Amino acid sequence: MAQRNNIETSGRHFLQIPGPTNVPGRILRAIERPTIDHRGPEFARLASEIFSGLKRVVQTTSPVIVFPSSGTGAWEAALVNTLSPGDRILMCETGHFATLWRELAARLGLVVDFIPSDWRSPVDPAAIEAKLIEDKTKQIKAVCVVHNETSTGVTSDIPTIRAAIEKTRHPALLMVDTISSLASIDYRHDAWGVDVTVGCSQKGLMLPPGLGLNAISAKAMAATKTAKLPRSYWAWDAMLDMNKTGFFPYTPSTNLLFGLAEAITMLEEEGLENVFARHKRLARATRAAVKAWKLEILCRDEERHSNSLTAVVMPEKSDADEFRKVVLERFNMSLGNGLGRLKGKVFRIGHLGSLNELMLAGTLSGIEMGFKVAGVPHRPGGVQAALADLTSD
Amino acid sequence: MAQRNNIETSGRHFLQIPGPTNVPGRILRAIERPTIDHRGPEFARLASEIFSGLKRVVQTTSPVIVFPSSGTGAWEAALVNTLSPGDRILMCETGHFATLWRELAARLGLVVDFIPSDWRSPVDPAAIEAKLIEDKTKQIKAVCVVHNETSTGVTSDIPTIRAAIEKTRHPALLMVDTISSLASIDYRHDAWGVDVTVGCSQKGLMLPPGLGLNAISAKAMAATKTAKLPRSYWAWDAMLDMNKTGFFPYTPSTNLLFGLAEAITMLEEEGLENVFARHKRLARATRAAVKAWKLEILCRDEERHSNSLTAVVMPEKSDADEFRKVVLERFNMSLGNGLGRLKGKVFRIGHLGSLNELMLAGTLSGIEMGFKVAGVPHRPGGVQAALADLTSD
Repeated sequence: MAQRNNIETSGRHFLQIPGPTNVPGRILRAIERPTIDHRGPEFARLASEIFSGLKRVVQTTSPVIVFPSSGTGAWEAALVNTLSPGDRILMCETGHFATLWRELAARLGLVVDFIPSDWRSPVDPAAIEAKLIEDKTKQIKAVCVVHNETSTGVTSDIPTIRAAIEKTRHPALLMVDTISSLASIDYRHDAWGVDVTVGCSQKGLMLPPGLGLNAISAKAMAATKTAKLPRSYWAWDAMLDMNKTGFFPYTPSTNLLFGLAEAITMLEEEGLENVFARHKRLARATRAAVKAWKLEILCRDEERHSNSLTAVVMPEKSDADEFRKVVLERFNMSLGNGLGRLKGKVFRIGHLGSLNELMLAGTLSGIEMGFKVAGVPHRPGGVQAALADLTSD
Repeated sequence: MAQRNNIETSGRHFLQIPGPTNVPGRILRAIERPTIDHRGPEFARLASEIFSGLKRVVQTTSPVIVFPSSGTGAWEAALVNTLSPGDRILMCETGHFATLWRELAARLGLVVDFIPSDWRSPVDPAAIEAKLIEDKTKQIKAVCVVHNETSTGVTSDIPTIRAAIEKTRHPALLMVDTISSLASIDYRHDAWGVDVTVGCSQKGLMLPPGLGLNAISAKAMAATKTAKLPRSYWAWDAMLDMNKTGFFPYTPSTNLLFGLAEAITMLEEEGLENVFARHKRLARATRAAVKAWKLEILCRDEERHSNSLTAVVMPEKSDADEFRKVVLERFNMSLGNGLGRLKGKVFRIGHLGSLNELMLAGTLSGIEMGFKVAGVPHRPGGVQAALADLTSD
C-alpha cells in the first residue's frame, strides 16, 4: 500500500463531485484582484457587462439577477417575489433537491402539491398536465421543476413540460431550477417559456459557491405586484432598479463577480454550443465506463441521462460512502455521495464545468482502481471503454 | 471529431514534459506575494530558511547556492569556479544534455574527453575507471556526469561511479547534474561523495524555471583557490560570503524564492522518502503501460530506468512529433520531444514533480487515445495495465 496522498502535497486534488466544480486558474486569478468600490464607475462597467453576458448564457432577453447567496437563496427568491402565503404550487419529486425546494416552500407558508416519483426518473409532463386540468379554479400559482436533478443524474424535458402547461391553458408560472445544468446542458429561458430560472455559481459557471441567479420573465415580474410573501433581501424590484445603472441595493460579492465576468468570457471563447457538446461527450464516455463495469446507472430513462453528472448504483452489500472514502484517501479524489434516501446506495460522478478528456480519464481511473482497492464487485475495463468511446467520433 | 480543446478554456492543460513540471497552486500563490526588499530582514530570514532546507533536499551539510539562472547557468558555475583554461575533464555521452554540457565546457576552453555511448545506456563506471587509470599524470581535473539524462530517461549509478574513482585514487572532482532527479529520485550529495551538484528549479522542485543550484564540497571549494577561469556572476566565494547573512551579492529572484520555500515545505510535509517512492510507483506504472502497448522503452537497462521520465521509441514509420502534435491539439497535453539525434524517433513522458496516480492515468489515457487518433501502431490496454500496476501493492 502506497502512502496516503495529501490533497495539497503531491499533485492535484480531483474534485469530481457534481459541484462545486474545479475552478480554473483564470477564474481564480480574476477573483484575487483587489476588491474595488462597489459604488464606483469601474464596478458599474463590470456589473453591466455581467448582466448582458448572463442573458446570453441563460438564453434570455429578460433580466438576470445575481444575489450574494447560495443556490438555495435563489430558490427562495423565486418563490417570495411571485407568491403569497397559502398559495398552492405544484412541485415534482425528482430527487433530493426537488424535495429540499418543496420543504423550503412549505416553510414559507406555501401549499405544495408534490407529484411523487422514484428518484430515478424525469418529471412526467402528463402528470403535470393532469394536475392542471384538475385545477378548474386555477388555484395553482406555479409549477416548479428541477431541470437536472443533481442527486440522481436525471434531466427533465422542459419544453415538453411547458407544452403540457400550454395545452391546459393554465396560467401557472413555470419555475425551473437549472443549478446543475446551466452552462453544461442546453438551457433556454426564453425559448422554453420559463418564467423564473434559478441558478448558481459553483457548477457549470466554474466559480466558487456564493452567487445565486434568477432570470425573470415579464409574467413573473407582473406577479410581483400581487405577491404578498414578505421580502427584502430577495426583492427583485429593488435589485432591478439598482442593476439598471450597474449597481446593487446592498453590498455585492465583488470578487466573485470578477470571476463571473471571466467565466462568461471563457464560455464564450469556447462557444456555448461547444460547451454543451463537450459535456455530452464526457457524459457519454462516463456512461460507457459504467456499463463496462457492469454497474447500473441510477437514471432509468436512457434519453434523460444527465450530461453533467452520473449517479452509479452500488452493487448489493457494497457501501457507497465506504467506497468514496477509499477513493479520497488513496487517490485524492472527491466523488459525490448519495443524498437522502440514496445515502450509501449510490455515488455520483461530477463531469461538469472545467473538465476535459484527460481529467475525465483520471477520474474514471480513480473509480476503477477504487473498486479494486475497496473490493467492490465490478468488471474491469471501464476506463478502456471510455477511451474507446472518446475516440469513436 | 470533437472541438479542439483550448489550453485555457475547458479543463486543465496536462504539462507532461520532463520539466518544467506542473506548478502546484500553493507554490503559485507563494510566488505571487508582493516582492520584498532583498536587503531587508524578512528576506534574510527567508533566504536562511531556504539555504538550510535545500541542504536537506540535496542531502548535504555543505553549502547550497541558488543562482537567478537556468540549469545551464549552474552547469557553467560548476566549471568556472573549479577549473582553469586548458584543463582536461572527463564527460560521458549519456544523451543530449550531457552533449550540451560538453559543448559548454569546450566553449569555456576546457579540453573534454567525452566517453561515447548509444544514448540508451547509463554511464559506464568501468570506462571512467579505465580513463583515470590511464591518466598517470593526473591531468584530468574533473569527472562530470548526468545523474538522470532528461533526453533518454536513463539514470546512472552515482555511488558506483564514485567507487570507481576512489579505486583509482585519482584526485579528479566529481560533478553531477541532478537537474531531472533532484527531489524525484534519491540523490545524496554527501553520502555519494559528489563535489559539485548541479540542479535547477523547474523539475522535482515544482517551481517555474529561473533558479540554478550548486552544492559544493570542501574539496570543490578548495579548488576555487587555483581555478583560473574568469568568473564574476557565478563566483561561489562572493555568493557564499553574502549568503552567510541571508543575502545575495546581486538581485536574487525574490518571488521564485518565496516559491522555493513553499516547495521545500511541501516536500518535507510529504517526506523525501515518500516523494521518491511516489515517483518510483508512477514510473513503474508508466513502464507497465508502454509494455502493454508493445512499444519499446529507450533505456536498454531495466535496472536504470528513470523514475522521473520515460522515453518511448516510436514504431517504424511513425513520427513522434506528428504524434505529439495530435496529442496537444486533440487532448490538450504536452509531451516531451525527441532531442538531437532522437528527434522524431522518441517522445518523452514526464512523470515527475507535482503528480499523482489520477494525473498519470489521464496522461497515459491521452497517449493511448493519441495513438489511436494518429494511427500509431500499438496494442490497446496500456492504461488498464498501468491501473492494475498501481493497485498491485
